[in-house]
Amino acid sequence: MPIAFTALTNVIRALAMDAVQQANSGHPGMPMGMAEIAEVLWRRHLRHNPGNPHWPDRDRFVLSNGHGSMLLYTLLHLTGYDVSIDDLKNFRQFRSKTPGHPEVGHTPGVETTTGPLGQGLANAVGMAIAEKVLAADFNRPGHEIVNHSTYVFLGDGCLMEGISHEVCSLAGTLGLGKLIALYDDNGISIDGHVEGWFTDDTPQRFAAYGWQVIAAVDGHDGEAVDQALRAARADSDRPTLICCKTRIGEGSPNKVGSHDVHGAPLGSDEVAATRAHLGWPHAPFEIPDAVYSSWDGRMRGNVFENNWQARFATYQAAFPELAAEFSRRTNGELPADWNATAAQALAEVAGKAENIATRKASQNAIGAFAPQLPELIGGSADLAGSNLTLWKGSQGISRTQGGNYVYYGVREFGMTAIANGLALHGGLIPYTATFLVFSDYARNAIRMAALMKVRQIMVYTHDSIGLGEDGPTHQPVEHVASLRLIPNVDVWRPADASETAVSWIAGIERNDGPTILALSRQNLPPVSSGVAPEVIRRGAYVLADCADPQALLIATGSEVKLALDARQALADEGIAVRVVSMPCAEVFDRQEASYREAVLPRALPRVAIEAGVSSFWRKYVGLDGAVIGIDRFGESAPADQVFDYFGFTVTNVVTTVKTVL
Amino acid sequence: MPIAFTALTNVIRALAMDAVQQANSGHPGMPMGMAEIAEVLWRRHLRHNPGNPHWPDRDRFVLSNGHGSMLLYTLLHLTGYDVSIDDLKNFRQFRSKTPGHPEVGHTPGVETTTGPLGQGLANAVGMAIAEKVLAADFNRPGHEIVNHSTYVFLGDGCLMEGISHEVCSLAGTLGLGKLIALYDDNGISIDGHVEGWFTDDTPQRFAAYGWQVIAAVDGHDGEAVDQALRAARADSDRPTLICCKTRIGEGSPNKVGSHDVHGAPLGSDEVAATRAHLGWPHAPFEIPDAVYSSWDGRMRGNVFENNWQARFATYQAAFPELAAEFSRRTNGELPADWNATAAQALAEVAGKAENIATRKASQNAIGAFAPQLPELIGGSADLAGSNLTLWKGSQGISRTQGGNYVYYGVREFGMTAIANGLALHGGLIPYTATFLVFSDYARNAIRMAALMKVRQIMVYTHDSIGLGEDGPTHQPVEHVASLRLIPNVDVWRPADASETAVSWIAGIERNDGPTILALSRQNLPPVSSGVAPEVIRRGAYVLADCADPQALLIATGSEVKLALDARQALADEGIAVRVVSMPCAEVFDRQEASYREAVLPRALPRVAIEAGVSSFWRKYVGLDGAVIGIDRFGESAPADQVFDYFGFTVTNVVTTVKTVL
Repeated sequence: MPIAFTALTNVIRALAMDAVQQANSGHPGMPMGMAEIAEVLWRRHLRHNPGNPHWPDRDRFVLSNGHGSMLLYTLLHLTGYDVSIDDLKNFRQFRSKTPGHPEVGHTPGVETTTGPLGQGLANAVGMAIAEKVLAADFNRPGHEIVNHSTYVFLGDGCLMEGISHEVCSLAGTLGLGKLIALYDDNGISIDGHVEGWFTDDTPQRFAAYGWQVIAAVDGHDGEAVDQALRAARADSDRPTLICCKTRIGEGSPNKVGSHDVHGAPLGSDEVAATRAHLGWPHAPFEIPDAVYSSWDGRMRGNVFENNWQARFATYQAAFPELAAEFSRRTNGELPADWNATAAQALAEVAGKAENIATRKASQNAIGAFAPQLPELIGGSADLAGSNLTLWKGSQGISRTQGGNYVYYGVREFGMTAIANGLALHGGLIPYTATFLVFSDYARNAIRMAALMKVRQIMVYTHDSIGLGEDGPTHQPVEHVASLRLIPNVDVWRPADASETAVSWIAGIERNDGPTILALSRQNLPPVSSGVAPEVIRRGAYVLADCADPQALLIATGSEVKLALDARQALADEGIAVRVVSMPCAEVFDRQEASYREAVLPRALPRVAIEAGVSSFWRKYVGLDGAVIGIDRFGESAPADQVFDYFGFTVTNVVTTVKTVL
Repeated sequence: MPIAFTALTNVIRALAMDAVQQANSGHPGMPMGMAEIAEVLWRRHLRHNPGNPHWPDRDRFVLSNGHGSMLLYTLLHLTGYDVSIDDLKNFRQFRSKTPGHPEVGHTPGVETTTGPLGQGLANAVGMAIAEKVLAADFNRPGHEIVNHSTYVFLGDGCLMEGISHEVCSLAGTLGLGKLIALYDDNGISIDGHVEGWFTDDTPQRFAAYGWQVIAAVDGHDGEAVDQALRAARADSDRPTLICCKTRIGEGSPNKVGSHDVHGAPLGSDEVAATRAHLGWPHAPFEIPDAVYSSWDGRMRGNVFENNWQARFATYQAAFPELAAEFSRRTNGELPADWNATAAQALAEVAGKAENIATRKASQNAIGAFAPQLPELIGGSADLAGSNLTLWKGSQGISRTQGGNYVYYGVREFGMTAIANGLALHGGLIPYTATFLVFSDYARNAIRMAALMKVRQIMVYTHDSIGLGEDGPTHQPVEHVASLRLIPNVDVWRPADASETAVSWIAGIERNDGPTILALSRQNLPPVSSGVAPEVIRRGAYVLADCADPQALLIATGSEVKLALDARQALADEGIAVRVVSMPCAEVFDRQEASYREAVLPRALPRVAIEAGVSSFWRKYVGLDGAVIGIDRFGESAPADQVFDYFGFTVTNVVTTVKTVL
């Protein structure tokens, strides 16, 4: 006997409310309101394999309204992922598989970490772009080895966030037909009924983006949701938004439809009342076998994957090299000859010893590596010609074709979160770009990249007052230092072309987090051409030494040359100083203590030079050292004048060194 | 003889291209493309007085596409503001009145600092809300002393940015009928023709927000623009978007309509060709007298203001108290009895000595001050009940009424930039709120508040791992430290209710920049009730001392109590330590050296305790001190367990202090 639809959905409601009640913390309203939508998608449409969460051609599912995490945990448990009933009982407990918000890499089947609103939707757009790109790269007539959909649940909060505009506008332009968003239109946000602050005609808004919009679907009517999903899957030219009218906390007789049920336990009385109302007599965390067996997706998942494996075997026979390349890329491995490619590029850069901007050196590095790394997928937030992110093989992705470059438009936050989705999908290594000062716009997506251990290389040019005339709105002062504070971000500020090439290699090889490159607008002379790349790679090193140094000069980026010049001037006065170039403080901090002491002997007084806020440098110069930095906003004027004004002169460095001796 | 329209617009083109050429840097394309629109608005509609840029009832004008700054400087010069032809010749030079992007407080007639795209539009929404609120507060039947429009120019970049969605959605909901936006629809952004990345049906999008949209206006046809502006001003219920089709760089025969003219000088040949093409024979910066006199807006401006002054005099006679209050508020003065109000509130808080969360203490402070400070205008990004930003007198602003509270919706960036507009308008002191971790979303608007010296109080709650179960996506770790790095921001992290009240007062009294309050979710016991408010006000102070301290314990917020407990435990072992509470490092750093030395004697070893990244504290503890902090992302679990896990225990503090002795 087929089990009733209500049992399949009420099990979600029961598990969600019981787990939140047990944790005495969490969000029951969304899982209860989206139970029917979830059942229809996960049991009838989603092509996934609970037994292998990493099957490359699985459909992707993103819970952009991540506070409703118990919905996802319930679905993972019921369909047969490695998420047990005990894991559900431990919801929100220390080191459980079921933290407050879903965390990728932590819980099997979770595709991305969500909670910060709007970003899951952006990740989903990235995943759909990745699918489009990889399909263009690898599919061949009669061989569709890349062909999957990306589904995303989202709520009012995601739609109010600006990032939803950025990424849905771009998704419409690119015609991402395999992206399907299900909007939980429950009319409630934390402050109450949304009419007071959110009155968009959302269907009209998404029509303006070029989406297929299926409006006014009853989100509690399984057949209506099913029909909408069929229509969504049938449109291959446009992304689809399905607007599902729902009641938040559906099933709770006294709290349904109110914001009281959004983010707090129902309370034991209301839990009991809900049980009675739903006709769900089972104790908390007790689930009838029939419900389990109806939900179990493992056999279905095996069939999906086995069919794909069979098709992939045929593909492999027909296109062995492509198949090997597909496997390499989806496994996140670099090409076998990568080390040789990198070494050759480094040797060439060192040999040329050019006086060029590090943004230009970055473009040269892209040009050297990208032909060997087809997984590199670039882009800029409408600053390609300033960030220098294009190379001769760049091919813009469009509605009608794949490629290796995304013209993101003026959408810094959306870009960065989309790129997180590109990386999470697998098969691609994204690099993104904007002016360093506008990393502010993207900041929480940078943080999410770090938290998710995503490989993304962020090319942030115009890295200081050295950009000159555009003035204080465009001159980063606090940015390099403040980006260094985000855990698990490596921030490189290279001094010349050689350091830039090394930092690019470090970013490409780093597979557990993002890398930021802070690059100059202005030309910088070669200073590190003679230094072995593996030395630069340690994050900081002795660039210019002397027999018996009296002090240390530590500098980064455009200020390294100033440090060298000051060292010469000091030498002329009989004062011996060592110059340390520190392109990446985080990498240096991870070196063994003996190396750090060898570079920065504790006994020596220190002066740090960086065209940014000074306080960061106290961790290297201490209370007794000095910092030549900028602790205020910049000035609009030609760059040389601005540098002089803020004391980035040999004279000032010499004077400052004398104060610490 | 009336002067030809073309002369009135070509003068803009000539000045823009010549100034950019002279600076060899800047953006000629936008001013050349928007010349007709600017003429129609500034000569026929804008009610302003060049002789008094601070006249309270002037129309506001915002150049959201701020890179086109030469357009604004040209208009200010031509209409008679204190911006001379020499100022134009010094475009983008050191300390000139004409920096690369417009800067409020620096150039007369500039209402807000723009350049970071989308934010000017948000500021304009804030100004329009301010007008609505002040009109409701002060107008009386027959006395409309507040009645002005807000005009904003914007481009494709502003419309691609997510913040445009956030603020235009809210503007539609609030029915801001006096907000009029003119969209420079030139089809070009820096990467080229926008079709590849921006294909929104913008009129449909804005219709979805509830705006009046006037589509397909020829932006080079003065009469068409004039008619559109009339229609815009006639609709008092809805904001209006006027979509003006323009050609970027209009007048340049060889570069018009291309992105080459966006952000670079035309070059001397093309400047000459443009002169010929326009029929503008005058040398650079030479302007015929007839053009000057036709543009001169000083007499018209005097009439506008004098009429208003006459009406205000009538109002003053009828409502002397209201008139005085209006003048006080628009002058940015606090009430005469403010000091007494503050002192009384502080005494009450100290007397109660409650064990409450600092977010609750913040709500109590709002409740104590707001009745005496009608200029306080609150709001939260959909977290009123969590941030605790409502008080009993809170009145939500809506389509049909003014008030003192904005339900911003889930729009952190938009909120913060709107609040900048509220403050810039005058007459209001905004406070805004979200979870501390989501300050990331708003970060560049925080920076802009600091750069513009805007008074805004940012209530950021759930300030550490102490929020517990919501986990690492919601637990700020780097945020307090990284916000401290933005120049001109005061970040307070109070330890208890008394410090919270002091920090609120500091924020209210600070008239040259924003104040951030980082507040706990969890209860904190009273620790500073016996401390004089003026001592707390110094940013850091000796909270618990001893005769002969061997070390200093420095702590903030929720960690101050831990420091006190550790001090006791150390005392039990015969180790004497001083506890310094440092609620605001920036304010402390501004104290005289003798006070700083008295609080933190240089000779003593130091340990800092704060539930955030450690490196910030090296500026106080040096290389020899220690920091108990968190240099990784948090964990989802009950708060007490998370604090224990990260070493925020008496045992660990005691052990750590011993390592530095």
